[in-house]
Amino acid sequence: MAANAAPIDFYCEFASPYGYLASTQIAAIARRHGRGVRWRPILLGPIFKVTGAIPLAQMPIKSAYMARDIARTARALGEAMGWPDNQPTNGLHAARAFYFLNETDPAGAWRLYSACYRRYWVEAIPADTPDAVAAVAATLGHDPAALLAGMTANAAKARLRAANDAAVAAGVFGSPFTIVDGEPFWGADRLPEVERWLAAGGW
Amino acid sequence: MAANAAPIDFYCEFASPYGYLASTQIAAIARRHGRGVRWRPILLGPIFKVTGAIPLAQMPIKSAYMARDIARTARALGEAMGWPDNQPTNGLHAARAFYFLNETDPAGAWRLYSACYRRYWVEAIPADTPDAVAAVAATLGHDPAALLAGMTANAAKARLRAANDAAVAAGVFGSPFTIVDGEPFWGADRLPEVERWLAAGGW
Repeated sequence: MAANAAPIDFYCEFASPYGYLASTQIAAIARRHGRGVRWRPILLGPIFKVTGAIPLAQMPIKSAYMARDIARTARALGEAMGWPDNQPTNGLHAARAFYFLNETDPAGAWRLYSACYRRYWVEAIPADTPDAVAAVAATLGHDPAALLAGMTANAAKARLRAANDAAVAAGVFGSPFTIVDGEPFWGADRLPEVERWLAAGGW
Repeated sequence: MAANAAPIDFYCEFASPYGYLASTQIAAIARRHGRGVRWRPILLGPIFKVTGAIPLAQMPIKSAYMARDIARTARALGEAMGWPDNQPTNGLHAARAFYFLNETDPAGAWRLYSACYRRYWVEAIPADTPDAVAAVAATLGHDPAALLAGMTANAAKARLRAANDAAVAAGVFGSPFTIVDGEPFWGADRLPEVERWLAAGGW
């Protein structure tokens, strides 16, 4: 089969610990197969309204398991991972900042989102307000006033809504969600299959 | 660490395709590490009443993904797998027959349950009535009349209820669910971690 250079689509929700963990792995997986990643931060709240799903963390018996599974998976991956007390967090503003920057600088947009993501899931520092996101952006060399203006403008809000709608249209219903050449993979636990699919072109 | 010969606990619901797929793999995984399997058929209906969960298959966008993921996973494992039209099926009678036989013949009990399981998930032949389960049992050399009497008696019903209650007490909330020396693993996608845990004794 001919080499395929199309980027893979990676959808993640800020409040999703499995989304965070997968986000630390997916770029390297894609790179090993000559692929880039099209980053798609999403908000699961509106998507769960469509699907009728219940957030995993809202079921006590599952959330206790999830905390254990996340810690175990992070150790297996050699990734630092905390378990913030202040869950769930709100990724709305990080996502709006992402889609504002993404218009002109996709790599910088992901750098900011992933810096916020890592601070929250490793150090439990929230990025749940426009000011908090702008403060992280300042450490990355962005003008915080310009970022604040852009991320709170209607255009950024509309881009996030459009991205979320497009995710639902693509069949996305959870986080993380990876689509490789049209093939959907739900969950951090499917990353080995994502890698195998990239290597083999399907099976 | 000293070799541990304690069996691992494997919980599965008859209507769960991931439970079926995992059931085809877990005995070999356990055997590779000198372990047996304590088979625990459960009914998720009463457990979901406790946890508030929604069956995956009742969310259309997820059930479409699940059918695809199941077929893909089965191909990767080299396991035959169908997608019966008559879902969800009812595993009540297969589970009662299991717990009836399990009192005197645990291996035979699993042989019957897994035969019913395989017929349903590979050939779409239901085993959702006492007579259907007894018919499968007859092919395995059981006296169908004795099995019918035993599986419909109060003792078998009470044993299934007790097994289900014990599963909830052990933290089980889905299918398949594997517990290795107290460590819980939810999902067919966690079998590689189950194997790694058996090999390493944790990490």
